[in-house]
Amino acid sequence: MKNSAVGPLHRDCGSLHPQDEGTEVEIRGWVNSTRDHGGLIFVDVRDSSGIAQAVADPRTAPEAAAAASSLRSEDVVALRGAVRRRPTGTENPKLTSGDTEVALDSVSILNRSLTPPFPVHGEADVEEGLRLKYRYLDLRRPHMQRNLALRHRAIKAVRDYLDEQGFLEIETPMLIKQTPEGARDFLVPSRLHGGQFYALPQSPQLFKQLLMVAGFGRYFQIARCFRDEDARSDRQPEFTQIDLEMAFPTIEGVIAVVEGMLAHMFRQALAVDVGAPFRRLSHADAMARYGSDKPDLRFGMELIEVTPAFEGTQFKVFAAAVQAGESIVGVVDEGGAARSRRDFDALARVAAEWGAKGLAWIAFTPDGLKSSLPKAALETQTIDRLGALTHAKQGDAVLMVAAERTEARTLAGKMRLHLAAQNNLRDARRFEFCWVLDFPLFEINPEGGIGPMHHPFTAPAVGSESLPGDPLSLRAQHYDVVLNGSELGSGSIRIHDAALQRRIFAMLGYPEDEVAERFGFLLEALAFGAPPHGGMALGVDRIVQIMVGAESIREVIAFPKNQRFQDLMMQAPARVPKALLDELRLRVDLPPAPPVSQRS
Amino acid sequence: MKNSAVGPLHRDCGSLHPQDEGTEVEIRGWVNSTRDHGGLIFVDVRDSSGIAQAVADPRTAPEAAAAASSLRSEDVVALRGAVRRRPTGTENPKLTSGDTEVALDSVSILNRSLTPPFPVHGEADVEEGLRLKYRYLDLRRPHMQRNLALRHRAIKAVRDYLDEQGFLEIETPMLIKQTPEGARDFLVPSRLHGGQFYALPQSPQLFKQLLMVAGFGRYFQIARCFRDEDARSDRQPEFTQIDLEMAFPTIEGVIAVVEGMLAHMFRQALAVDVGAPFRRLSHADAMARYGSDKPDLRFGMELIEVTPAFEGTQFKVFAAAVQAGESIVGVVDEGGAARSRRDFDALARVAAEWGAKGLAWIAFTPDGLKSSLPKAALETQTIDRLGALTHAKQGDAVLMVAAERTEARTLAGKMRLHLAAQNNLRDARRFEFCWVLDFPLFEINPEGGIGPMHHPFTAPAVGSESLPGDPLSLRAQHYDVVLNGSELGSGSIRIHDAALQRRIFAMLGYPEDEVAERFGFLLEALAFGAPPHGGMALGVDRIVQIMVGAESIREVIAFPKNQRFQDLMMQAPARVPKALLDELRLRVDLPPAPPVSQRS
Repeated sequence: MKNSAVGPLHRDCGSLHPQDEGTEVEIRGWVNSTRDHGGLIFVDVRDSSGIAQAVADPRTAPEAAAAASSLRSEDVVALRGAVRRRPTGTENPKLTSGDTEVALDSVSILNRSLTPPFPVHGEADVEEGLRLKYRYLDLRRPHMQRNLALRHRAIKAVRDYLDEQGFLEIETPMLIKQTPEGARDFLVPSRLHGGQFYALPQSPQLFKQLLMVAGFGRYFQIARCFRDEDARSDRQPEFTQIDLEMAFPTIEGVIAVVEGMLAHMFRQALAVDVGAPFRRLSHADAMARYGSDKPDLRFGMELIEVTPAFEGTQFKVFAAAVQAGESIVGVVDEGGAARSRRDFDALARVAAEWGAKGLAWIAFTPDGLKSSLPKAALETQTIDRLGALTHAKQGDAVLMVAAERTEARTLAGKMRLHLAAQNNLRDARRFEFCWVLDFPLFEINPEGGIGPMHHPFTAPAVGSESLPGDPLSLRAQHYDVVLNGSELGSGSIRIHDAALQRRIFAMLGYPEDEVAERFGFLLEALAFGAPPHGGMALGVDRIVQIMVGAESIREVIAFPKNQRFQDLMMQAPARVPKALLDELRLRVDLPPAPPVSQRS
Repeated sequence: MKNSAVGPLHRDCGSLHPQDEGTEVEIRGWVNSTRDHGGLIFVDVRDSSGIAQAVADPRTAPEAAAAASSLRSEDVVALRGAVRRRPTGTENPKLTSGDTEVALDSVSILNRSLTPPFPVHGEADVEEGLRLKYRYLDLRRPHMQRNLALRHRAIKAVRDYLDEQGFLEIETPMLIKQTPEGARDFLVPSRLHGGQFYALPQSPQLFKQLLMVAGFGRYFQIARCFRDEDARSDRQPEFTQIDLEMAFPTIEGVIAVVEGMLAHMFRQALAVDVGAPFRRLSHADAMARYGSDKPDLRFGMELIEVTPAFEGTQFKVFAAAVQAGESIVGVVDEGGAARSRRDFDALARVAAEWGAKGLAWIAFTPDGLKSSLPKAALETQTIDRLGALTHAKQGDAVLMVAAERTEARTLAGKMRLHLAAQNNLRDARRFEFCWVLDFPLFEINPEGGIGPMHHPFTAPAVGSESLPGDPLSLRAQHYDVVLNGSELGSGSIRIHDAALQRRIFAMLGYPEDEVAERFGFLLEALAFGAPPHGGMALGVDRIVQIMVGAESIREVIAFPKNQRFQDLMMQAPARVPKALLDELRLRVDLPPAPPVSQRS
């Protein structure tokens, strides 16, 4: 095994071209495959640029041929020889170097490889646990190479754009103070200060506000953030965020910067024009039309409130719903009349899993109506009204749920997405952005009290700084940017007035001592000349995932954790020696194993 | 208090120019100062671009003048009016807008400020604890604005350069596995896996090696790293590193990339040409000539082994040293003969603090020799030999220490730096880079065993892969880049052969089960076709500190910890509620307070 020096002959595997004919080159990389064909040894070599074919002829280069015939997949080699055209008919148009081959003079084997646990070439479907354990092999596969290269280009484009716009990237600390906000903090014990803890940031929110107080007019950061949430299918305990903040902003100003940034990002990384300015929807409108505050606008299928069609209906379930002031919300499935009853039953089961009490459907078939509703409920008047409301045509079906209005909309919105997926309307190569605006400032939290809809630093709508009337009717200077049904980012104009910030904390029921303890430094900072300020945070992992059309954010992260937040390659988290914990003044206090027998 | 919209009139304070005369503008920022001068109210307003002067005339704009006269330092304002030239003789050439002023029409007070705890304008010397507690005010000061803007430009230049050179920035995880290497890991308890811990990375070392195994030919990352060291004067528990790695590298290849990167960085951020290629020194040469592996080359004053001058000396201390095989190492202090005896005594006390057994000196004054040595020791032969070795001229002094050779060099090297500082030779505006090469592979560790000089993944010198002979004589494929006496970065060609890596672990005395537990995944990865690879890591904080000529890295970090690793603004680390620790299955186990009385 020898370490070959980088020679001036070196060429990337993907760069060989018929014009190079006769040139002596060295290619280096991994053996993708070998084959013996009529006595000639063919070696396909792969590097991050592509694949090149090398051929050893035992008659003219016996040593090279002998070495080549010993090669196995994933061995690391440096091969030398002259470039020549492949014989006519043997070109491979799928490869950028597919018109050429290298006539081997010498083979250096730089490192041997064990047999990989799964094939590295090609795009075989491999169980994810195995991929994560051998991530360094998984990352050799062409689609993972492409994903991470695209991620690099996308983030580079963000930095170039924001730098051009006068933003400074400023690094904020990762060993910070534990705060009681939102999802849970990871804690970091201090050795120097036994019994005390830092926390890892869930976002640079407070620091970016402090940077505005500090007079940096335009700040950004590509920031690692941490959240010790209960593991969910597509979350990671650490994630990356584009974080930006501006002093003296307007919502229009922030929107213009973010649209420009996303447009630059998609142009540079994907050569896609995203068509800014984006559409805009109010939160109320998004909920009414799409049953979601992150609508997928790649297709229509807007929700329709069909309650009026069922006033005075014979159908007891709907009659009771109308009576109770509930809503009946429908969605038109174009061509859905062709579905079988079995198909509709399957949809009803899906809706039941989401918590729907039922799913009603009416199909307008060429042979007349088909429906889950009893015959008696299909009065002409009802059907006419329904047709007028939904514009359903012959061949379509209308699916309906009845529930409290927001719930009915949410359920119908989920059904809209489900039907769109079945009908192949969620085209991964289309990018439909929108802004959602005019969010409520507060919402009812799980404990039944008033909680911030996003975070307690969000400014109320202009003109409502005195917080008049019903708290739940207050609107926020908050805005989300949404792509294909995913929220990419969230932002707001912040509170810059210490007195207003105190009133908000009080409305949220935060005890005064907790406010002093946790947010004293923020309130103090606001009192020393805080400028008006606002900004946004966007999730990098999600944006890149949508760009490459991947199923999971794990496909665009080099070394992700699994769904149980474990690193399967390194085996983390893990137990640590007791001596380390002693230095941290910590003891692990696990519940005792269940008793095998009882002794007193 | 009203939130003014961004008007089209907005101009940065530092951008006003006599050509703008007559233009209506709005400037926004912080009140730097106000004064009442002959009935006119002058307001200096500051934003990140600079300072503008506004003038309110109570006769023509009574409302604006009344508002202006209520302003206090650090209030946040938006001011409108027409630009005009300042009257001749009142221009301020120190300000970019110093030829102009704004004749105030209106004053919007966007936020009031309490009286700051220290003056924000100017560069007053403020106690660091106070600066860190009110960091958001400290950061408003012009030199801190400049430092962070320069840091942004420097890091942007690194990214642009490496991107241009085909490097991909790839983010590696921060919640990793605890390893026993080097300084101490910060631990992060897992909630999902009670009793288990992640660790924060001290560097992305293992991940960048895995990315090479994964076939990414050129990787970099501007990476946050963490080290729970015992607090030292200019260390931070979190710091930022330029981390890069290349497959199929040579040392020359890495050096070329890093020199190009540093040159681009200094050109873009400072408009300084660093004069690549840098000088090169072997480790042995650096130790012999400068008594340091990070020599300051802004001045000469090379160390001289003067032992031969004292062979057969009458001076018992040196005679004993020569006898014992020790070295006498000298440094010439140009013009040092003018020092008083008291001055030399002070230098001797400093040397004693570093652990020197003594400091001998000989001054070549116009009136003959002056020396700490006894007269009898100053034989003509000795003085002649000393003069020939040191080239000391009349007016110079030679300072000498005797000790084991490496120790003598280290002590004399420290004296060299000390004298250079006294003689103002350490010019903060000069940048003298060098490479130090040919480091030893191993060193004696504090326990008396063999330890890696840098880390156990460093490849031995080409040709010594079989690890022949005395381990301490082995050289490493390791290289440091040094600027003005500070190590900026460290790198090496890594071991890519699993068998060699195992032999190195064994030589270092790592128990096999520990190797399997901690580095099993690395050894496995090397066995699946690891390419030859190598790279470097450079400290961003230190580079930027030297660029701006700051005393401490805390001057180039937005929110640093103090020397006890505390955030004085947020008050972190801090105690956390017991309920949080319960969820983590942890108990704090502080030693009991000293007993007041004894009870049984």
